[in-house]
Formats: sequence, C-alpha cells, structure tokens
Amino acid sequence: MSRGDRAQVMTVRHPDYERAVRASFDRQGLMGRLGARLVRVAPGEVEIEVDFDEGLSQQDGFFHAGVTGAIADSAGGYAAMTLMEADRRVLSVEFKVNLIAPAAGERLVAAAKVVRSGRTLTVCLIDVFVIADSRRVHCATMLQTLMSVEDR
Amino acid sequence: MSRGDRAQVMTVRHPDYERAVRASFDRQGLMGRLGARLVRVAPGEVEIEVDFDEGLSQQDGFFHAGVTGAIADSAGGYAAMTLMEADRRVLSVEFKVNLIAPAAGERLVAAAKVVRSGRTLTVCLIDVFVIADSRRVHCATMLQTLMSVEDR
Amino acid sequence: MSRGDRAQVMTVRHPDYERAVRASFDRQGLMGRLGARLVRVAPGEVEIEVDFDEGLSQQDGFFHAGVTGAIADSAGGYAAMTLMEADRRVLSVEFKVNLIAPAAGERLVAAAKVVRSGRTLTVCLIDVFVIADSRRVHCATMLQTLMSVEDR
Amino acid sequence: MSRGDRAQVMTVRHPDYERAVRASFDRQGLMGRLGARLVRVAPGEVEIEVDFDEGLSQQDGFFHAGVTGAIADSAGGYAAMTLMEADRRVLSVEFKVNLIAPAAGERLVAAAKVVRSGRTLTVCLIDVFVIADSRRVHCATMLQTLMSVEDR
Repeated sequence: MSRGDRAQVMTVRHPDYERAVRASFDRQGLMGRLGARLVRVAPGEVEIEVDFDEGLSQQDGFFHAGVTGAIADSAGGYAAMTLMEADRRVLSVEFKVNLIAPAAGERLVAAAKVVRSGRTLTVCLIDVFVIADSRRVHCATMLQTLMSVEDR
Repeated sequence: MSRGDRAQVMTVRHPDYERAVRASFDRQGLMGRLGARLVRVAPGEVEIEVDFDEGLSQQDGFFHAGVTGAIADSAGGYAAMTLMEADRRVLSVEFKVNLIAPAAGERLVAAAKVVRSGRTLTVCLIDVFVIADSRRVHCATMLQTLMSVEDR
Repeated sequence: MSRGDRAQVMTVRHPDYERAVRASFDRQGLMGRLGARLVRVAPGEVEIEVDFDEGLSQQDGFFHAGVTGAIADSAGGYAAMTLMEADRRVLSVEFKVNLIAPAAGERLVAAAKVVRSGRTLTVCLIDVFVIADSRRVHCATMLQTLMSVEDR
Repeated sequence: MSRGDRAQVMTVRHPDYERAVRASFDRQGLMGRLGARLVRVAPGEVEIEVDFDEGLSQQDGFFHAGVTGAIADSAGGYAAMTLMEADRRVLSVEFKVNLIAPAAGERLVAAAKVVRSGRTLTVCLIDVFVIADSRRVHCATMLQTLMSVEDR
C-alpha cells in the first residue's frame, strides 16, 4: 500500500446491491420527510443530497446540524451496505460529526466512503458540502461505525 | 467536590433565558418539520421530545438515527444557551452519538445536561430515551461541544 | 426504569472476573510504562490512576491528553470485561474524549462505567479527574465502544 | 473547489513555525517516555512515529490504543500549530479515534492533516498506520478539534 493511502480493495458480495440500497432508502420515512435524494450508489461510496427549505433550518436560517447528521448517517450506512452480502443488514453503532463551516446555501450533499469493511464492523468517512451560488464548501466531516447483522 | 461527581455550579447570566430559548426553538424549522416539542428548560438542562410517525423512520420502522441526532443536538445547544449571557449565541462544534438500543417506540426524549460551561466552549452530555408501552429505554448517548459567539 | 436513569442491571458471567482483569492489566506494558495502577474493579466499573511525573507531560507541564486517553481507554475496556464470559476478550472499537479542564495536578484518575453491555458491543462512559492540592476536578469525559470477541 | 475536495489553502502566519513546533515537541515529556519522533513538519501536516517496545503494548502484545491516541493527538496539535500566529498556542478540545485494524507491527506512524483552520478552532484528520514486515497498514483514523489560545 502506498504511503498515506487509506484505500482498500472494495469487494462487492451482493450482485444486486444497488437495487437493495435503493429499496431500503425508499423505506426510510425520514429521507422522504426531509426531501433527500439518493444521487450516487457505487461500491463503497454513496451520495445523498437535499435542497434547502424552511423546514430544514436551524435558528439562523441555515441547514440544521440534524439534517447534516441525518443525510451523512444514511449515506454512510448505504455505503457500508454496498459491500455486504445479500442476507445482511446494517445498523449505525455510533457517529461523530465536526461542523466546520456554516451550512448556508441551497443544497447539502453528503458523500460517504467506506474506510474499512470488516466482517462485523464497517467504518465510513463522510464529507458534507453545501452548495451556495454554485460554490461547493466543505461544511462537515463525519466518522461513523456500523455493524452488520443477519437479516431475519 | 465529592468523589465521582460531575456536577458543577450552573450560573444563570441571562435573566430571561427561558424566553430566549423558546423563541430560538420556534425559529428552528427542522423542529417543526419533525414535530418536536421543547418540554423542559432549566439552568443547564433541556428536554426535547417527539412522537413517532412514519416520516421519522429508518428502513425497519424505528426512529431514524438522524432524528435522535437532531433532537439531541438541539437539546444540548439549548442547555448550553441557558447559561450564556443575553448577547451570545451558540453553535454546535461537533457531536458524537452512540446508538445503544433500537429506537423502537411511540416517543423519543432527549435530555441534555451541561457538563462544563466555559467562556468559549461548552460540553453537554445528552441521553436519549425511547418510550414503548410506557417503558422508558435508554437508546442513545451524545457527547457534544458547543461554541459561544457574539450575537451580532 | 426511573426518569433520566441510565442504570441497567449488571450481570456477572465470569466467576473470577477480577483476577482475569488484573492479569490482563499486568500484561499491558503501557500501563507499566506510565506507572498506572488498577485501583478498583467491580461489576461494570473500573478505576485506574496514575501519579504525575515529567514523562507524562505535554508542553505546559500538565498531564498529556494521551495519558488521559490511555488510562480512560483501559479503564473502559476492563469495565466491559467484568461483565463478559470467561472465554471472551475485549477490543476497543473507538473512543471519543472531551478535554474539559487542564489536567494540571499530582494525580489522574479514570473512572469507567458500562452504559450498555450487549452480546457483541459494549458502551462505556469514563470520567477522568485530576487531583490537585486535595481537590478533585473533572477534566475529561470519554464515550467508548468495545467489541467482545472469542478468546482463542 | 473541485467536487469532493477537502483541500483548503494553508496559510503560514508564523515564519519560524517549524522551530516552534520542534521546541514544543521536545517539551512534551510523554513523547520522550514513549520514544516518539517528529518526522515531518509542513504547513498543515505533521507526522510522528514510534518504534514498538514492550512498554507500549496492550495485553496481546500489540501497540496499546493509548499510544495510537497519544501520537495522533500530538500530530494533530502540531499540524494545527503550523498554521497559527507566533503568539498563539494550541489546546486539544476533543478527539475521536476509530481503531480499524490491530496495531500489530514494529512501528506506528501518525500522519495529521488540517481539515479546517479557523480563527478559534481547527479540525484535523489523522490517519495512523502500522508497519509490519515492510507493509503499511491503516490501523486508525482520528477526527480532532483544537482551540487556539493566546500564549501568555
């Protein structure tokens, strides 16, 4: 592995992982309530975005950190799911998010990548960007742990 | 201070802190979108709760971790605000949440306490409980850092 | 469960858990290098302390955050181990520590409690106190996730 | 900013930042106690490494997570310091570390990068690698918040 490289081989074990991810996303009532869209599904990588509206704001009119957390958590969960076998499902164990710039803009995008996919645990790193006047500003970073459990 | 005690004296610096907290909460569009209510405001302590509906769910029909994160983050922010001066406002710097039991039930309650209130930074610990059939189950714990900034 | 209560029943499954914890602690070379002592072992609760010396300092002469992290991580790991079966061992999955006051003093004490003990994952909350002139100051809080694995 | 880019311009404000970082590192007694070395100092980037010895181990003979945490925390702190003015010093506010592979090997390297350098707060991402038989394995990721304070 090259110096400083965080990459690892991403092995797909579920032939129809994208359909499974999209079906699960559609069952997440919260994503509908927020108006979030699943915009990218690839092995170990998922992106979710949401357009601003008043019902997503905190007290100053920016995106609420709860929206940032919600779409980043879902993006990480689905990134983990792209690398799991068909009979597994994924649960968030914990996540930590640093809010590094005000989420002031017209759209919020959470881009998740799997850092490590293990048999039981998966770790994802999710960067969140806010789009304001066609500029893309990095506004949050999440580090998340997920657990794979048997899907009964 | 007694052994093992995390308590510290909570000094109120804003005579009308409760009104300020309630006014700010009402400006958080996300709290309205989720149907969340501010149910307790005391020096260094705030509780927010929300009733379950389909628009708050993850794929298995439980409360989405994003809802847990959102109400816990707001509860911690307002707990911090109860101890600030009138000309300050509060921003979340980062938060970390451990999801320790499925949030399956009819109501979710986030109870925030200030662990340390400093001039610039405040740290809160927030426990989240889910109410199911009148039982109260501890389902998440958040550790959160907030920053006080001048309110221009 | 009473309102706001984080307590849960702590079931001991290893009849000789204290001996097992002490034997493991003695194998941790780092605890010896730091001069740390295991001062309390009870079901779901462990305390580790260390006296200040120059080899534990950061640049200002206080305890280095790395010492805080190290004894808190070990205390949490052993608190988790007190509730595990004899054929299991424990690994840290992740931890998050907030440094809430300068760790300036003659002794550092990490007091760990299990928040939730599950079949695979355990979550601990660890408070760290610094003793200075017989006063005990809360200087850090850690939230930690551990995994139980089979001991081959 | 390009899509998915976390980079930002790293402005150096202290003409002799490397000497200041090295002098501070030499005052950290813990780095000496652990045998850690400062191997790279560049704007917004610092690397610290340490060779394995028995005094750095956990119970299975790997590097203790406390060592991982200690060198990652110092590396992040000094990465932040490279971008600060000469009259400022840096304090760790909090850090979160995911331990993603066993730290089994002969050397541990913490590589820190500043993600966001603000007036008061800086956020760093630190990857830790273990070198075993000339292979470099990514074993931990830390997300850390630091505060800049006036150096009295």
